[in-house]
Amino acid sequence: MTSFIPYNQDSDFSIHNIPFGVALLDESFTAAVTRIGDTVIDLATLCDAGYFDEFELPDNVFDAFTLNHFIDLGKAITVPLREKIQQLLQEGSELHQDTELQEEIFYDYDDVIMLMPVHVPNYTDFYSSIEHATNVGKMFRDPENALLPNWKHIPVGYHGRASSIVVSGYPITRPNGQTMPEGADAPVFGPTKRLDFELEMGFVVNSNTDMGKAISTREAEEYIFGMVLFNDWSARDIQKWEYVPLGPFLAKNFASTISPWIVTLEALSPYRVAGPKQDPEVLPYLQYTGDRNFDINLEVYIVDQEGNENLVSESNFKYMYWNMSQQLAHHTVNGCNVEAGDIYASGTISGEKDNSFGSMLELTWGGKKPLKMKDGTERKFIEDGDVVILKGFCEKDGVRVGFGEASAMVIANE
Amino acid sequence: MTSFIPYNQDSDFSIHNIPFGVALLDESFTAAVTRIGDTVIDLATLCDAGYFDEFELPDNVFDAFTLNHFIDLGKAITVPLREKIQQLLQEGSELHQDTELQEEIFYDYDDVIMLMPVHVPNYTDFYSSIEHATNVGKMFRDPENALLPNWKHIPVGYHGRASSIVVSGYPITRPNGQTMPEGADAPVFGPTKRLDFELEMGFVVNSNTDMGKAISTREAEEYIFGMVLFNDWSARDIQKWEYVPLGPFLAKNFASTISPWIVTLEALSPYRVAGPKQDPEVLPYLQYTGDRNFDINLEVYIVDQEGNENLVSESNFKYMYWNMSQQLAHHTVNGCNVEAGDIYASGTISGEKDNSFGSMLELTWGGKKPLKMKDGTERKFIEDGDVVILKGFCEKDGVRVGFGEASAMVIANE
Repeated sequence: MTSFIPYNQDSDFSIHNIPFGVALLDESFTAAVTRIGDTVIDLATLCDAGYFDEFELPDNVFDAFTLNHFIDLGKAITVPLREKIQQLLQEGSELHQDTELQEEIFYDYDDVIMLMPVHVPNYTDFYSSIEHATNVGKMFRDPENALLPNWKHIPVGYHGRASSIVVSGYPITRPNGQTMPEGADAPVFGPTKRLDFELEMGFVVNSNTDMGKAISTREAEEYIFGMVLFNDWSARDIQKWEYVPLGPFLAKNFASTISPWIVTLEALSPYRVAGPKQDPEVLPYLQYTGDRNFDINLEVYIVDQEGNENLVSESNFKYMYWNMSQQLAHHTVNGCNVEAGDIYASGTISGEKDNSFGSMLELTWGGKKPLKMKDGTERKFIEDGDVVILKGFCEKDGVRVGFGEASAMVIANE
Repeated sequence: MTSFIPYNQDSDFSIHNIPFGVALLDESFTAAVTRIGDTVIDLATLCDAGYFDEFELPDNVFDAFTLNHFIDLGKAITVPLREKIQQLLQEGSELHQDTELQEEIFYDYDDVIMLMPVHVPNYTDFYSSIEHATNVGKMFRDPENALLPNWKHIPVGYHGRASSIVVSGYPITRPNGQTMPEGADAPVFGPTKRLDFELEMGFVVNSNTDMGKAISTREAEEYIFGMVLFNDWSARDIQKWEYVPLGPFLAKNFASTISPWIVTLEALSPYRVAGPKQDPEVLPYLQYTGDRNFDINLEVYIVDQEGNENLVSESNFKYMYWNMSQQLAHHTVNGCNVEAGDIYASGTISGEKDNSFGSMLELTWGGKKPLKMKDGTERKFIEDGDVVILKGFCEKDGVRVGFGEASAMVIANE
């Protein structure tokens, strides 16, 4: 497959990707877009030109502020439509000849502003990396019994805050909160001293279900439109004081950052791999067949005050103990309904090695082993002015499909 | 104040109330409504007739499926507009003379179907009754240290599931889930055996705030449009197995039931009372002035299989240790943004006495002291076919303002 739009070998946005996003294309025009290399393609105008007529799409489905309406059409439409876009962007296509339209719908990535791709009605965060759960258990609870008794039976999760999910680029203000200092007998108030990232991925659901409908592991992927990078910003000192007994709350709900491009499950399919063996055996409603994990390389960078990118973690989505189908089956087994645009995040994705942990909490072991930056400074946690960048990509047989980045600068709390 | 619409002395919907809801008025017409006695009043047609012209309302603000757009106008509009409705419904008003319009806009309560009053973008559940937190702590954790160290410093809360909040009348299917039976060494799957209600109230926020905006206790009530009854259905056996360490999840997210009428904070204002003394003193951002609690009588009934209403709990919203202003100040102190239509629930509202507890868990002390029903049966928890009804009302100097009810039947899981 060769696109007539040129791009570098190492671009996340090859002809094999065809992700979806929403962009402000000029001062007053917002539209659904896709991307090849550094070229952003306006799908609304492409649609108006008649190239998608065979799909009989509803009016203005791409001329929109979010992708919710589009993804809600379901895979019967969105899968062949993505293939059609892919075909149109190849050498020798009808669009290749139509240079006038190209002029109108191709934008330089640097000239557009990426927006939130979906309105998020509900957001849930899982806790599905065994390495992360073990690390946190060792630090916060009992090193000898780090994993709680329910962990290998349930894809543990909790409801997060949908309102404060923002797109890559939106600055994050260091949050205020209540903490209990070591040895103190009363809590204090002020900006968090232990601001952290969490390296996660999220999947976006494409339909509304009725209350009472349980989605089986067999059908779960039909409900998953695609995936994004997800930084679940966390204030560890606030978390420690507040989280017992009802879970994390203000330590997490001040902000989460997602990547602007939703990469479809179909684009990720060539990178399927088997998940870790689950022992003990899980209950029947959590059993599944086939390869449900994905080999997605993940990286976290901290940009220091001199502008150097410091690679602080190299992890992989394939480490997940619980896969997305199991997460969705569990979430709905009690009849809980889902909505188009919902995001379900993985929880921090840590690997086994010290340099594959997905949070500063784990990388510096609670601040005890600071990381060295190229500018000579050290980091126990994230400092004001730091930019944290998550990156993710798949690569196999010379074909690359990636997510770009989820990036945000941390701003002082004045 | 006397309305020209007749109603019983003991009606929750006196001329002093003027709540807001949304109703299906006939097969194809949905509109914002208010209510006096058993008369439901169509505000969309009243608006079209020009009675609200002075407010220069946006088009179709009452001709809507939800109140979100209306409440988002803010108190500068909604407060005088409610007073205008109240004035129009009094003897001798312009509307009193306009019998033709009355014919068009007055409906019998029995002839309409009440719908969800708002679309709920985000839902948070607090845990603000000291009696409830103490009871649960005694049962689930340590009887000697029932209240956790953070409880008197933080209005503890967690994010709930917005998608499964339904209006009074919607049947609730007994949820399936994973539980760990006493003494077993592996979990089992099936319908919950410990289905419970939680007697709560929720407040509805009227505006969107920007991320980073902290709402102070001083300004908090400006953001509170009004209140509803809230039944936070809970599956205790699922909860016990899943809730450590990230809090309740599937034990709660299968359904919550709210009353269809939002009673405004202005209607509740005559029933203000002082809250309990908070000791130790709370941090400055949680301090407040004035009476921020409300004297709202609360009742829970179980309708047994013979149709008898069994009063199982009599509680009061005034018992809340943390008030709504403190909850909202806490929730936003880290910059978490709120959205118009958000619901913030109180947590189970228990009093000191055995018969004032707000859940079966507490009323039967974990199933050890079953409640006797009028039909001769007993209840440890809620059974299939039971109807659970929450009621709430204020009464003072012969003036009554109430919520009607939040009612739902429990259906077997087939």
